[in-house]
Amino acid sequence: MAQRHDFPPLRYVPGGAPAALADGPPRPGGPPYPGSGPRPYGTDGSALTGRTARDVLAAYLHHRATDFLRSLRAHGESGPDAESTREAARQLRSAARRIGGALHTFRPLTDERWADHLRGELAWLSGTLAREHAGTARLDRLLGALQRLTAHTDPNSPTAAAASRDTAEPDAAESLLSTGAARAGALLERQITLARTRAHSAALQALGSSRFHAVADAVAVLASEVPLTATADRPAPDALLPLAEQAHRRLAEAVAALPLARAGQAYNADALAAGSRQDAPWHQVRLLARLSRYAQEVTDPDDTDPRLAEAGRALERHRDAAEAAAAAAAAARTPRIAPATAYALGVLHADQRHEAEAARYVFGRVWLPAPEPGSSVRKG
Amino acid sequence: MAQRHDFPPLRYVPGGAPAALADGPPRPGGPPYPGSGPRPYGTDGSALTGRTARDVLAAYLHHRATDFLRSLRAHGESGPDAESTREAARQLRSAARRIGGALHTFRPLTDERWADHLRGELAWLSGTLAREHAGTARLDRLLGALQRLTAHTDPNSPTAAAASRDTAEPDAAESLLSTGAARAGALLERQITLARTRAHSAALQALGSSRFHAVADAVAVLASEVPLTATADRPAPDALLPLAEQAHRRLAEAVAALPLARAGQAYNADALAAGSRQDAPWHQVRLLARLSRYAQEVTDPDDTDPRLAEAGRALERHRDAAEAAAAAAAAARTPRIAPATAYALGVLHADQRHEAEAARYVFGRVWLPAPEPGSSVRKG
Repeated sequence: MAQRHDFPPLRYVPGGAPAALADGPPRPGGPPYPGSGPRPYGTDGSALTGRTARDVLAAYLHHRATDFLRSLRAHGESGPDAESTREAARQLRSAARRIGGALHTFRPLTDERWADHLRGELAWLSGTLAREHAGTARLDRLLGALQRLTAHTDPNSPTAAAASRDTAEPDAAESLLSTGAARAGALLERQITLARTRAHSAALQALGSSRFHAVADAVAVLASEVPLTATADRPAPDALLPLAEQAHRRLAEAVAALPLARAGQAYNADALAAGSRQDAPWHQVRLLARLSRYAQEVTDPDDTDPRLAEAGRALERHRDAAEAAAAAAAAARTPRIAPATAYALGVLHADQRHEAEAARYVFGRVWLPAPEPGSSVRKG
Repeated sequence: MAQRHDFPPLRYVPGGAPAALADGPPRPGGPPYPGSGPRPYGTDGSALTGRTARDVLAAYLHHRATDFLRSLRAHGESGPDAESTREAARQLRSAARRIGGALHTFRPLTDERWADHLRGELAWLSGTLAREHAGTARLDRLLGALQRLTAHTDPNSPTAAAASRDTAEPDAAESLLSTGAARAGALLERQITLARTRAHSAALQALGSSRFHAVADAVAVLASEVPLTATADRPAPDALLPLAEQAHRRLAEAVAALPLARAGQAYNADALAAGSRQDAPWHQVRLLARLSRYAQEVTDPDDTDPRLAEAGRALERHRDAAEAAAAAAAAARTPRIAPATAYALGVLHADQRHEAEAARYVFGRVWLPAPEPGSSVRKG
């Protein structure tokens, strides 16, 4: 835990806003949506009228900090029930991500040094807890895919019954896959279970560490007193909306750089051919979409855009499929595996890259068409 | 060549129409398209006005027989130039398929015993010649796919150059694929070349056989005198259109039984999961679409429906991808191959099943939506 000495203490030390903020938040001019037509992703802000930024942001952080502490308690009390432990960890990560997101988007209204440090610590915690969950989900996904790919070779499955009307004998691919799939599944289970066990130990160790206790203390402070600067005393629409808009604009710009026209053509075969090297911009958009959604939760708690959540889910599926494909490929590099096992892992790898391509296609369908220039998303 | 003694001689022996035909062709009543709205696949028949079925059918068969004989001569004269030999064989098969198709669709207007026999012999010839071509096309498709799948691992490719901006190191899947793809390609080349050499010998043997000479003689007869029955002396619209309609209806009914709603959902993952067992109805529709198109060539030579040709091309792509996937799987069963080779063949198999799924999707997009009941395609 040498690393934690690199950070300042997490307790809030009052301090003025940095000089750069004296001019107020960036790009304050103009109403958010001067144009007509379909509303882009962004912020309505009607819930902010008559309130200060401090009221709004403190209330949001207060609620998320309470969620964090409640799920932490639930996690400690959950005992041997794996399901309730997982659910508590999931809620803990959800609260940690939201606090971190709000501190990121509305950073100029906070003590930035404090906010940056807490954000880093929350990301560490959330990442540590996520690894165990990700292992479970990845194994479920891969074993589910293997089952789907070999369902027709099981004579008791409805698919097989329907298929057997066409041909009596399975073909070469099918019989090879049914031989290799069981071993591929066992190999993946062994490798991912090992990684998951390590992740579980790391999570337990993290939750018992003084570094974690410092994070929990800092979050407990948020539940009662949020360290905001004097800028936060301005009217909420003036102080919060431009910062939320900035989050939405960053997302829109990152989406504009994606090859959406290509991804919108079904069966473009890009995700398999290009491999994981071109996944990074999609992963980046997933993070920006999440920040945008959390910013909406602050400014429009009663009117968050369901398309944004749906687009985010498509990109989560993209990430999950891409990681599952990588796990299948990694398993295929195990020394001395049988060719049939390697063959099944190759089919599985391609299937998951295909799933990643499908997720990009869905994202393209869900994403609001780019608004006319000047009518909605303001360019910087 | 013992088989050829099972067939009657191919020379036309004049004979009356079978008794079943005395009532005329099936379902003669009603105009083809009583309804309004978009015209379904089918027949307009304006080119038939004032002609007898004999005039129309004899002219069509005369032209196709002339094509057959010309391409046969070209094939014999093509010498060592592989490209011109291939082209002559392609034209020979095309003419043979069209003659067979017309004899099938308009069978009640012909001496049926003679027509059925010639049709069988043309199918034998066309199938024998097709096997060599199919081997070449399959190898091209598989090596092309391997090249596409590994293009990003070649540092000189534009894809790789673009990708290298994202990450410096190839991931596990990519490096494994680039190791295995070369060996997989070599293995496929060896196996398919061997099969192609056998097909080439079989084609040469077939073209030198007395069985083939009998087919050529029978086609030569078609070029001057087509053995049709007295029914063919009826007006062409009355005698030909109901038979052409029957071909279009068979196609429409087979298409109606396809899982088109499912195939129309992009990325349904059916073709890989269900394997080749559920390909048969699609292959059947490919054959029926071809018969329907050839029937249109007889009844509407100047107005064949381009959508029908496009739908047919999608199903040819479906067939080619399905057969390429099977070849990849078959290669993966070669004893003692390296795991990396088997892995690359698994990726290739899944890629080609994905291509088959994409072809089904395209077919669903190209296919005309089913017309209203009673308005166009008459139900039997």
